[in-house]
Amino acid sequence: MNNQDTIIALSTPAGSGAIGVIRLSGPDAINLTNQVFSGKDLTAQASHTLHFGLVKDGDAIVDEVVAGLFVAPKSYTKEHVVEISCHGSNYIIQQIINLLISKGARAAKPGEFTLRAFLNGAFDLSQAEAVADLIASNSKASHDVAMQQMRGGFANELKGLREQLIHFASMIELELDFAEEDVEFANREQLRNLVNKINHVLHRLIASFELGNVIKNGVPVVIAGKPNVGKSTLLNALLNEERAIVSDIAGTTRDTIEDELNIGGIVFRFIDTAGIRDTADIIEALGVERTLEKMKLAKLIIYMADASQTLHEIEEQVRGLAQLEIPYLILINKADLLSPQQRDEFAKLNAVFIAAKDKLGIDELKETLLEQVNLHHINTSETMVTNIRHVEALKQTENALQRVLNNVDNPVTSDFLAMDIKQALYYLGEITGTVTTDDLLENIFTKFCIGK
Amino acid sequence: MNNQDTIIALSTPAGSGAIGVIRLSGPDAINLTNQVFSGKDLTAQASHTLHFGLVKDGDAIVDEVVAGLFVAPKSYTKEHVVEISCHGSNYIIQQIINLLISKGARAAKPGEFTLRAFLNGAFDLSQAEAVADLIASNSKASHDVAMQQMRGGFANELKGLREQLIHFASMIELELDFAEEDVEFANREQLRNLVNKINHVLHRLIASFELGNVIKNGVPVVIAGKPNVGKSTLLNALLNEERAIVSDIAGTTRDTIEDELNIGGIVFRFIDTAGIRDTADIIEALGVERTLEKMKLAKLIIYMADASQTLHEIEEQVRGLAQLEIPYLILINKADLLSPQQRDEFAKLNAVFIAAKDKLGIDELKETLLEQVNLHHINTSETMVTNIRHVEALKQTENALQRVLNNVDNPVTSDFLAMDIKQALYYLGEITGTVTTDDLLENIFTKFCIGK
Repeated sequence: MNNQDTIIALSTPAGSGAIGVIRLSGPDAINLTNQVFSGKDLTAQASHTLHFGLVKDGDAIVDEVVAGLFVAPKSYTKEHVVEISCHGSNYIIQQIINLLISKGARAAKPGEFTLRAFLNGAFDLSQAEAVADLIASNSKASHDVAMQQMRGGFANELKGLREQLIHFASMIELELDFAEEDVEFANREQLRNLVNKINHVLHRLIASFELGNVIKNGVPVVIAGKPNVGKSTLLNALLNEERAIVSDIAGTTRDTIEDELNIGGIVFRFIDTAGIRDTADIIEALGVERTLEKMKLAKLIIYMADASQTLHEIEEQVRGLAQLEIPYLILINKADLLSPQQRDEFAKLNAVFIAAKDKLGIDELKETLLEQVNLHHINTSETMVTNIRHVEALKQTENALQRVLNNVDNPVTSDFLAMDIKQALYYLGEITGTVTTDDLLENIFTKFCIGK
Repeated sequence: MNNQDTIIALSTPAGSGAIGVIRLSGPDAINLTNQVFSGKDLTAQASHTLHFGLVKDGDAIVDEVVAGLFVAPKSYTKEHVVEISCHGSNYIIQQIINLLISKGARAAKPGEFTLRAFLNGAFDLSQAEAVADLIASNSKASHDVAMQQMRGGFANELKGLREQLIHFASMIELELDFAEEDVEFANREQLRNLVNKINHVLHRLIASFELGNVIKNGVPVVIAGKPNVGKSTLLNALLNEERAIVSDIAGTTRDTIEDELNIGGIVFRFIDTAGIRDTADIIEALGVERTLEKMKLAKLIIYMADASQTLHEIEEQVRGLAQLEIPYLILINKADLLSPQQRDEFAKLNAVFIAAKDKLGIDELKETLLEQVNLHHINTSETMVTNIRHVEALKQTENALQRVLNNVDNPVTSDFLAMDIKQALYYLGEITGTVTTDDLLENIFTKFCIGK
């Protein structure tokens, strides 16, 4: 696919800042920039060089800028790319973009730079998708998984399997060509072994999605408990140490982070259940459909109690929770106020004891949270599927291969075999983009931000 | 002044985007980056070159980046500068900044890059201030004025005058050294001429502030009128054509632009006067102190009436406005509904007739708005003072020079003459930063955004 036009977009976030970077990509990227650039002749410069100059609209100076040149194919998109670093004023950015559009550039669609990189073979589709995940990542784990995928880990794992399947597909096609001679080019035993091997990998990848999804989107947690049991104090205690990671950068508002905590590199999202947080009786709260629905979204429910409650009361509430069949954790706050008798009693609950106000027990709680969601020892260097599209394709591949296994010893079904193997190849190919449709590409890249 | 340390900051706006640019400046900028950069040896590369590579924290890949090198003194700050262009994720940006801080960089204070550029002689103080104005500029006029100042127009104008004054100051100092000999090194006639010439320029510059301030900060306008007279429709009609300039960039919310219109390159700020917009009776509204205060901030008041009102009613309302001694404009909306008799009557009002709904008369209204605030034919290439600090310094200069004029023919006051000339020089020097204090610099640069 040839892209004859040159696209342009602001690649840095909108808003006032010290600098803004406008990116052009396409055959005329350097030419067009040169037409409005007063300084060196950009068309005569080497790749990977920076040039100070003025952007001028006729005689009027629009801005002092630095233009960075990437000469094709040594660029992100493998086309000519220019990055214009200008003063970070919306007015200036808009002027420069409009000026270059008037010279012949076209406003880029969301993700169009990355789409071009994919179409020009800079990377495969799963890597392109990982770029978006990387930008959206807000924790060590989600970052590591996206980085691993962007650098081709997932794609490489699929590639070998796919090549072997292709080999068998062509052997079986050959058999079909010589059908009347009843030869067997494709060794059925080897095919079965290969399919089993692939299914094993597929199974592992599909299973990794549960964890991958949690890593990418965070662990939804509900905190339940009586009013004033210390839920806000707990969130603050957890926040105090971690907020640096989430919120050191201006622009992240406290409203958002209050309910999103980064614990040990995993984001825990505390779902707002106005209905339950301040309800003394869980069973009653579960009767409210909306609350119940929200509870069911949780991967973990924390039931928070304190010294003012009896063992019986806590046990009763927890029995209510147990009906939901979602992992739960009993947390006893204000543990410093427990009587020795309470302490003995509550010990039976397998609870975590904390004093949120004094930040006692917080580290243990964090460990327990990670253990509860099985995220204590994640190996983020292992390939993990985080994308629902990929899981769907993997499942379709698995289905097709299961049909292959069912038919492998049936000599009259060679053409079905061939068809099912092709189906499997098709779905595997969809993941990396060996097989694409316009719909698929549009669906993926419109979710990108503009300028990427 | 030597800056021994290396500073770092995110230079693009915070938030998710395709890319973020992290800037380092200082003697170790290249060295420090090189320590975390996996790719070419950055310390061995030429200035103004771009290098693709990985940022690594130990073995862990933080991101794929492009590092742009500016070798001292060929940079914005005249120090070594590195611009690291990374994926625009807050998590990644924070990781890279933290990593480089752990290697020895220091988080930059607001405006610290520009402060260093000033201290290293890249430009004078008024130019440094213009950088902030340029970033904040949101209209053609404010952009042009800031650009003119950033490129040294204002500073150059002052420079020549200052040099001549310095000449006289030294001549008079010489006279004081030879006081007993009663010689006159400084020709009094020439001095008087020079001071008059300077005062003429000062006077023009000080007078330009009224306009300059409006250009920089926008023209505050109040729209008054009965409910349903069509105020929102008017704003929308004005917006429709102009919103592209103000709001094409994502992130500018409609809430903000609704009351800020760019008309002919000038920003008109429609002040929210809930009190008056929906009050039928202006005189009554003026009785409300808070409303009155807001009205007094306006440079222009639009009184909007329609066909449902009588001439008498409109005249009465306008009499109320006249008491404020602020320019006002009578606008008759729904002009298509006027009876021939009303049309004749209302013509006496010197009003502008529009039909906001059908967008009739909008262009004429715009012309009138610009005329009303004397901004119809601004010459933005002329030096204009937009900064209250500069006006204050200019006024102080003018005062000191007035004292010089008063004393110039009085032989016993040579030392007063010398003192006043020095005073004038001091204040002129404050504008361009020839004379600075730490307080002054701090006051200026803390208003910058971080990363500039």
